[in-house]
Amino acid sequence: MSGKVGVLIVGLNGATANTTVVGTILQREGVVSGSSFKKGMLTEDGCLARHDLVDEAQVIFGGWDVTNASAYEAAVRNRVFDGACFYPIRYKLREVKPMKAVCTSHDVNEAITSENTRNGASLLHKVQGLRQDITLFKKNNGLDEAVVVYLASPLKMRGARYYTSLEEFEKGLLNNDPGITSAMLYAYAALQEGCPFVDFTPNITLEVPALLELAESNNIPLAGRDGSTGQTLMKTLIGQMLKIRNLKLEGWYSTNILGNNDGKVLSLSEHAEVKMRDKLSVLEPLLGYSDFHHSVNIEYYRPRGDNKEAWDNIDFLGWLDQPMSMKINWLGRDSILAAPLILDLIKLLEYAHRIGEKGIQSHLAVFFKNPLGTKVRGFFDQYKLFSDYYTSLASKKEKQTDNVAVAAQAAFPKYH
Amino acid sequence: MSGKVGVLIVGLNGATANTTVVGTILQREGVVSGSSFKKGMLTEDGCLARHDLVDEAQVIFGGWDVTNASAYEAAVRNRVFDGACFYPIRYKLREVKPMKAVCTSHDVNEAITSENTRNGASLLHKVQGLRQDITLFKKNNGLDEAVVVYLASPLKMRGARYYTSLEEFEKGLLNNDPGITSAMLYAYAALQEGCPFVDFTPNITLEVPALLELAESNNIPLAGRDGSTGQTLMKTLIGQMLKIRNLKLEGWYSTNILGNNDGKVLSLSEHAEVKMRDKLSVLEPLLGYSDFHHSVNIEYYRPRGDNKEAWDNIDFLGWLDQPMSMKINWLGRDSILAAPLILDLIKLLEYAHRIGEKGIQSHLAVFFKNPLGTKVRGFFDQYKLFSDYYTSLASKKEKQTDNVAVAAQAAFPKYH
Amino acid sequence: MSGKVGVLIVGLNGATANTTVVGTILQREGVVSGSSFKKGMLTEDGCLARHDLVDEAQVIFGGWDVTNASAYEAAVRNRVFDGACFYPIRYKLREVKPMKAVCTSHDVNEAITSENTRNGASLLHKVQGLRQDITLFKKNNGLDEAVVVYLASPLKMRGARYYTSLEEFEKGLLNNDPGITSAMLYAYAALQEGCPFVDFTPNITLEVPALLELAESNNIPLAGRDGSTGQTLMKTLIGQMLKIRNLKLEGWYSTNILGNNDGKVLSLSEHAEVKMRDKLSVLEPLLGYSDFHHSVNIEYYRPRGDNKEAWDNIDFLGWLDQPMSMKINWLGRDSILAAPLILDLIKLLEYAHRIGEKGIQSHLAVFFKNPLGTKVRGFFDQYKLFSDYYTSLASKKEKQTDNVAVAAQAAFPKYH
Amino acid sequence: MSGKVGVLIVGLNGATANTTVVGTILQREGVVSGSSFKKGMLTEDGCLARHDLVDEAQVIFGGWDVTNASAYEAAVRNRVFDGACFYPIRYKLREVKPMKAVCTSHDVNEAITSENTRNGASLLHKVQGLRQDITLFKKNNGLDEAVVVYLASPLKMRGARYYTSLEEFEKGLLNNDPGITSAMLYAYAALQEGCPFVDFTPNITLEVPALLELAESNNIPLAGRDGSTGQTLMKTLIGQMLKIRNLKLEGWYSTNILGNNDGKVLSLSEHAEVKMRDKLSVLEPLLGYSDFHHSVNIEYYRPRGDNKEAWDNIDFLGWLDQPMSMKINWLGRDSILAAPLILDLIKLLEYAHRIGEKGIQSHLAVFFKNPLGTKVRGFFDQYKLFSDYYTSLASKKEKQTDNVAVAAQAAFPKYH
Repeated sequence: MSGKVGVLIVGLNGATANTTVVGTILQREGVVSGSSFKKGMLTEDGCLARHDLVDEAQVIFGGWDVTNASAYEAAVRNRVFDGACFYPIRYKLREVKPMKAVCTSHDVNEAITSENTRNGASLLHKVQGLRQDITLFKKNNGLDEAVVVYLASPLKMRGARYYTSLEEFEKGLLNNDPGITSAMLYAYAALQEGCPFVDFTPNITLEVPALLELAESNNIPLAGRDGSTGQTLMKTLIGQMLKIRNLKLEGWYSTNILGNNDGKVLSLSEHAEVKMRDKLSVLEPLLGYSDFHHSVNIEYYRPRGDNKEAWDNIDFLGWLDQPMSMKINWLGRDSILAAPLILDLIKLLEYAHRIGEKGIQSHLAVFFKNPLGTKVRGFFDQYKLFSDYYTSLASKKEKQTDNVAVAAQAAFPKYH
Repeated sequence: MSGKVGVLIVGLNGATANTTVVGTILQREGVVSGSSFKKGMLTEDGCLARHDLVDEAQVIFGGWDVTNASAYEAAVRNRVFDGACFYPIRYKLREVKPMKAVCTSHDVNEAITSENTRNGASLLHKVQGLRQDITLFKKNNGLDEAVVVYLASPLKMRGARYYTSLEEFEKGLLNNDPGITSAMLYAYAALQEGCPFVDFTPNITLEVPALLELAESNNIPLAGRDGSTGQTLMKTLIGQMLKIRNLKLEGWYSTNILGNNDGKVLSLSEHAEVKMRDKLSVLEPLLGYSDFHHSVNIEYYRPRGDNKEAWDNIDFLGWLDQPMSMKINWLGRDSILAAPLILDLIKLLEYAHRIGEKGIQSHLAVFFKNPLGTKVRGFFDQYKLFSDYYTSLASKKEKQTDNVAVAAQAAFPKYH
Repeated sequence: MSGKVGVLIVGLNGATANTTVVGTILQREGVVSGSSFKKGMLTEDGCLARHDLVDEAQVIFGGWDVTNASAYEAAVRNRVFDGACFYPIRYKLREVKPMKAVCTSHDVNEAITSENTRNGASLLHKVQGLRQDITLFKKNNGLDEAVVVYLASPLKMRGARYYTSLEEFEKGLLNNDPGITSAMLYAYAALQEGCPFVDFTPNITLEVPALLELAESNNIPLAGRDGSTGQTLMKTLIGQMLKIRNLKLEGWYSTNILGNNDGKVLSLSEHAEVKMRDKLSVLEPLLGYSDFHHSVNIEYYRPRGDNKEAWDNIDFLGWLDQPMSMKINWLGRDSILAAPLILDLIKLLEYAHRIGEKGIQSHLAVFFKNPLGTKVRGFFDQYKLFSDYYTSLASKKEKQTDNVAVAAQAAFPKYH
Repeated sequence: MSGKVGVLIVGLNGATANTTVVGTILQREGVVSGSSFKKGMLTEDGCLARHDLVDEAQVIFGGWDVTNASAYEAAVRNRVFDGACFYPIRYKLREVKPMKAVCTSHDVNEAITSENTRNGASLLHKVQGLRQDITLFKKNNGLDEAVVVYLASPLKMRGARYYTSLEEFEKGLLNNDPGITSAMLYAYAALQEGCPFVDFTPNITLEVPALLELAESNNIPLAGRDGSTGQTLMKTLIGQMLKIRNLKLEGWYSTNILGNNDGKVLSLSEHAEVKMRDKLSVLEPLLGYSDFHHSVNIEYYRPRGDNKEAWDNIDFLGWLDQPMSMKINWLGRDSILAAPLILDLIKLLEYAHRIGEKGIQSHLAVFFKNPLGTKVRGFFDQYKLFSDYYTSLASKKEKQTDNVAVAAQAAFPKYH
């Protein structure tokens, strides 16, 4: 594919979004090598070799945030990269500035009261603002296509509603219904503007029937929910091994410490609720039984910064019910694990849109803690879904191409 | 399948073999439940549901050992089970007594000088003794079929030869060639007596072309090498995840502590050599590159007993070459992990023999650290090999059955 | 000392108390060896060699509990010991049965509604009942001395009052003041009956000035608060090392998983409050600064049973502010660590009473998470307090003995 | 103390020595703060407040190395610090260049064949060269005092001799006796030139009676052996706790991975021998018994660089012989932990020399894995030795000062 692709990120100055922006520009400006840039990406898999995805040189970043800092200032504050590292691209980073965010009562209190938000109480007014933002971003950058990625903090889910039809949702918009969350506003605006939408957070947005209906009628592909970067990834991996080896899980205790803003928000129980639901939902469908003790703890721990550390204790029974255990200490980096997956998802959704796919792309389950549209929870089964999909798609395409070539030959026999 | 199946174990009184015997009898006598007995078994997988495997009630145990203790005395010494647990079946266990073992210079020194070994320096004499042992065991127990499982300590590999033809090997037998190990003698005797042979240890036995030739000509299925029970299992699991997620391995440090006899033998560097080779061989073919630091350490540590503990430190690079790591502390039980796999292999090789398979059964890769006959090293890829094999075999069988039924219908139309 | 000593435990059937009873009787009946019985005891320290402590053969157990099970039934339920282990002493254990407990609104709901509690709403009535229990227990067992040990679940502290004088407290008793907790009733009864009192839990009981006043006027020694058995012990140890080595603590994250009843109660935030306070209070006075992140998490995790597991992550800065860290995984056994300390405290408080000591015995700080009467928090400093106290006490005693002998010689010169 | 102090380091370009040099100059030039510089130092302890130690501004570095790189080039190669960090002081670092090293057959092969070594086979010639180096270094820098610190790689001990008298040693010098190691040559030269000598490595140098005799007759203080920075520090800490709590050690398995040059040399078994001896020697004298399994493993692991990681598994028995365990994962930095201790030792030995102390300074045990001159092995007991020594020294001094003052007053009554 040639041409440019817009990427509009909700939460543009958060650690993950900002890391994605900084890293991509570092690569574009030649500061980091192509090989280091590809690490952690699933689109490097052989199954995608015969598909024509956009590449990072084609991406133009924008988005919304409750702070109005530039990507440069955000990078300084996020401390994912050492300042010396992004100093050479500071001018490029200063050009990336967020538009005003929209909030509802489900947002973190700090966000609601922040300065860089769109005033006016009416939901309709907010949605129209977002749609205008998208239109202008495309126009100003001469873009045909833009993908919207939701990376803002998990919302309070209390009072959020699962609108069962588009009609009901739009009535809610008119009535300023408190069941509509800010994330739904972004999704609605994106879908109305023809933009594929990725939800990398545990919000319920893409479970709302009204929004699925809209995606369907507007032919928009969607992907979600809740990026699987570390501890849950390990859980889907080891869980599947226990299943295959017929080792009976007795208990799984998981704890996480992280010190970035995500950690701070997740230390608020109202905001952690959806995250916990996703983290806890993974084992039962994978193992096929539920008589085990499963507990997950997330804790804000300042000294860790963006480095996310997890400790898992797994108890299982082997032959003759003999107890054994395994402990895993994972020392990862939140944004570094997430950023390449976000780039993957941007590329894959843009591609899906281009080839005419719509609705939840359930073959992308391998990217998510709580993948929508499928019950598959084992890491390797999810990878197989992914890899089989693109392999068979490639074969289909090639067959079509061959047919076209044959047809062409038939039409213009003398030229061949 | 009805009828009895003999199982002759080399190293009958070692912790793993003895645990297999004790546990199976505990189950047969109703001391442990069927559900606890099935834990840790791969033959419980759905892909085997339509195959007619023998069950544990049909198995009769025997074998060879350098000690002449009964299974009861061995259980007391091995301390895998609490004495109170196997006290109720003590009479049954006292009936299981080993035949005299054969040794060569490759065996542990203690074994060579032990009392329960077959005298006489000639290799031919030893082999004939073993063949007679098998014949008599089958005759005395009224058996048609017996499987031989090698579970003795890893041998010193110095001087062992890869005999390229059966002729050359048999010449060696006549000449008492020091390149022939005791394990080769067991394998040769088993194959000559028509017994499937499993090598659960890191010896080179099943890499010797002469023995493969014999298995081929005698239509005997084989499986090996080196059971994958804990640390290597985790390595094939996590290695495959790193590969799929395109995370670059920088280093993998593995250490093991175990306090059983296996640990004692492996603390002798001559005997550890083959084990280390297997443990170290797994990552490169799985990842497809070799520029990482890989180191494995095995240590005899008395207080641990049969409880095998491993600690792994894994360093990898993510996006933009950012370093991350993971540490795994595995608290397993050596014999408890191995025993159900050994029962699996007995059942699967007996079945393979019954349906006419011969040579290395490479679809059993998932059981082994260094599976013979295949380059597949990822745990999930190995499991897929296994599961696809039995699934497709079942379909084939059913088609045949249908064809037979159809043929029968054609032949006797009026009866249908 | 000759003669018998009564030990009345509040929470007699809980895991820790019951383990103390079972183990002591196992030792008395010769089932376990003296050497194994002494493990984990501080009174085995050389500094106590010249002091005449009671020994376990002299102890007679009794106490109160909200269940009326015998020590045998409690042992079966607590699962700290394998049933086979205490089967030989079952008759002795069946004789140990609790008296009816008293509760207030601060107790766990299950306790309040349990059957084995003393009826009647009046606090005075309850206290009188407890005093009678003590009198009768002493009388029936022909005892001169009894020590009361509080081992029941941590109470809800909301509403509990720090009565500043005995007068105020006794007025509260008459008025059924809701600021009086059940633990205060036990302490008050014990002190009125002349019994030394140990608080091995995080309750505030021994911080109440009224009760300290009573201990003072009745010449009763006290010890508390909150036994230091595992994670906090390690914290006082490593904290002191960091202090000495001048390594700057940046953060300490502690998590605990345990599956016994204590774990269940501590999973209730109201009851965990006092425990957390103790666990969190230890580092600041030890290090002398507070600019670090300290977080403690306790989680009920069924599969662990009485085996208490902790994971600690410690971040510190070394030379030139370079960050380093240490992770500790502690696999302990709650009751097995506590029981010998409880026996130590019984012996030491009985002894203190005998030699005329009264009030908080601050030299016993080494036993407690939040030792009363001292600011010393480093493990080794606490041990030094302990060891210096008994060493100097022994010297003093010997000097007195010498003086007496000298005086005697002077008085009766001809007899010498 | 005013004036300058020379510090001559054997192995000046190794990671630890070079880190000490770089960090000290960073502090002197104001790049790092005083507070960060003091972290990890024991001389910051209150017990030294009343002693007049030199400070880092007074230190002038020099020394010997088998490479002739400047401190700047060495810092680039050692990768302990990020290049950006020491760039501002590059000119100062380039001035610090090593003199030619001396080697004997006990050195690492690479060292023996390196270019920056003093030619000539004769030991006498080498010693004279070293003495001249010291003389010139002092003269060129206008120094009265210099301390020599041995930080080179551990030597092969095979064939090294414990010369029982100075006479015997000097005869060996004349005869080029192969029992004399290069480390002995450095120590001998230092002692002859009146320089205090620190051995921070596991070599036997300071156990050689001949050298102790020389130190005694020349009034030189010594300190050693083998700096205690991480794993052994933890061992002396936890070992002492087990001792006090009367918990019986059953087994201690320690493994270390490190990727710097020290790690490389220690992966050679001949060179690891002395290190292992020190690491293994610590527990028995501390605990007072030896019936436990103790095993230590050191492994060169490239990806770790100078970051030293250790994993320890500790098994112990508690009450009634119940087994428990603890696992410690230490993520330290070799040079960062060692450098402040080296500065401490320089200051303390210079001071000892100044106040007239000589021979092994056994009160410095807390710095060493295998402290000479004392059997004390518990961390806290060692710290007490240290702290009591300086506290009592200060009191003594003050008393003297007071006496002098009193004497002065007596002499000149009218001036007071």
